[in-house]
Amino acid sequence: MVLKRDKCIFKFSPFQNPAIRVSPNTSVEIETYDCFSDQIKTNEDTLEKLDWNRVNPATGAIFIEGAEPGDTLKVIIEKIEIGNKAVVATGKELGVLGDLFDTLISKVVNIENNEVLFSDKIRIPIKPMIGVIGVAPSDKEINCGTPGEHGGNIDTKLITEGSIVYFPVFVKGALFALGDLHACMGDGEVCVSGAEVNGKITVRFEVLKDLRINSPIVVNSECVSFIASAPTLDEAANLAVRFAHNFIKERTDMSSEDIIMLFSLIGDVQVSQIVDPLRTARFTLPYWIFEKLNVKIQ
Amino acid sequence: MVLKRDKCIFKFSPFQNPAIRVSPNTSVEIETYDCFSDQIKTNEDTLEKLDWNRVNPATGAIFIEGAEPGDTLKVIIEKIEIGNKAVVATGKELGVLGDLFDTLISKVVNIENNEVLFSDKIRIPIKPMIGVIGVAPSDKEINCGTPGEHGGNIDTKLITEGSIVYFPVFVKGALFALGDLHACMGDGEVCVSGAEVNGKITVRFEVLKDLRINSPIVVNSECVSFIASAPTLDEAANLAVRFAHNFIKERTDMSSEDIIMLFSLIGDVQVSQIVDPLRTARFTLPYWIFEKLNVKIQ
Repeated sequence: MVLKRDKCIFKFSPFQNPAIRVSPNTSVEIETYDCFSDQIKTNEDTLEKLDWNRVNPATGAIFIEGAEPGDTLKVIIEKIEIGNKAVVATGKELGVLGDLFDTLISKVVNIENNEVLFSDKIRIPIKPMIGVIGVAPSDKEINCGTPGEHGGNIDTKLITEGSIVYFPVFVKGALFALGDLHACMGDGEVCVSGAEVNGKITVRFEVLKDLRINSPIVVNSECVSFIASAPTLDEAANLAVRFAHNFIKERTDMSSEDIIMLFSLIGDVQVSQIVDPLRTARFTLPYWIFEKLNVKIQ
Repeated sequence: MVLKRDKCIFKFSPFQNPAIRVSPNTSVEIETYDCFSDQIKTNEDTLEKLDWNRVNPATGAIFIEGAEPGDTLKVIIEKIEIGNKAVVATGKELGVLGDLFDTLISKVVNIENNEVLFSDKIRIPIKPMIGVIGVAPSDKEINCGTPGEHGGNIDTKLITEGSIVYFPVFVKGALFALGDLHACMGDGEVCVSGAEVNGKITVRFEVLKDLRINSPIVVNSECVSFIASAPTLDEAANLAVRFAHNFIKERTDMSSEDIIMLFSLIGDVQVSQIVDPLRTARFTLPYWIFEKLNVKIQ
């Protein structure tokens, strides 16, 4: 099944009409624009000329049959393919060094042989990842540029081909969408953008009735990451650790003291992004501890 | 040359008398207490009984011949050996979940076969690292529990055997000290302690006259990390990116725009610790970019 990118939305909304309906366990190929809706094609297409109403599109919404509020949506990222040009942008009041700049700056870079050609001297290996991914919140609309418990612009570089992302389901059908592919990005996304690129993502959904979570969880073969977003990085980091604590506490007989002491020795507080309206942090535990504690991630 | 651990200090101070004087390029074996001055030996030695005036000792200070204010002290971590018991501590108002607890909690764990025996079920591979490491500030005393531009309690798990740490020199002789070994620790040190352990660290110093830095830098074969501490994690992260920017800007002809865009694609904002009086973040770049840009880390 294919979902074309003209079916795009600019906010995650419980009031959204779905673009398509899919059954669990069906692979869906989702086409995506880059975060500027592909408006920047050359170095002459500057950010000043941009229609800012068309920033951060996500393709969707996808209604997943059988998903009900309180369930968990399991999203298996089967494949990511990206285009051959990317845009990097920064400038005045954007990103960590925004105070140093007077203008908006963008740069179109080619992608060849799985490398981003940043300059004549610098070629960066691609590591495609999904910036915007999530479901509809329960009772309000959240624009696609903002992260939250529903996912959204969580800009987490672990969300890549082969990883699995879990979201709480807030509304019937979940109303899933994704977009904002990056050819590569560092933790923090410090200039305010990654190597912004269009592409195609193949995903498959499962609906879990027995798992209840409060915020996105990302799993790959090495680690399990609990994602949290908040006005400050300190608050986001604190929340991410609490989500992880609650997850383990509900599923084992460990005391809170033992859980946090264990976390302190083996878990990493990590940064997803520090440049969106809310900051996103994650608390990452090694996969082996879930096996050791007999806590199943379905 | 050996420096015994009874030569310990509880603050980094420009007014400190040195414990020993060493020439550059001499290996020094430094013995260290754990962060509780080895006061906790069994589970009966609780935190309530602790003499808190003896917390966070660092062994030193070491006067390095030839080091002058404005120089950079290069510290090569040649070897780390740790004891066979460690202490993990948390509790009321300590660490990320301090609000959940009414008391102080500590736990003595054995170290066998290079593993921390956290419980019957859970064995954690050791990754010894140095929590407190630094030089004297220019004009004030800073207790060893607090991080800063001089280093101190920066709790950065990259500071391990084989890594090199650079510090700005503020006073004649630098007055270097270190302590607070951890058998293992995750980024964040979320319960307020790692696996606190005593041990021996062998270091070698070089004094660099041509390198000027403003805050610690950690280098290993894979990456270069710029360390910053501040009242919030957001501020510390912002500062760490700025330190990295200034370092590259002073040594290449790249524009600030290009530097931050490059950073956004390949650099990671990382967390060292979020539980000390100041938070410590780091901005980590891959080592290859320094070779590519022909920027030498001496």
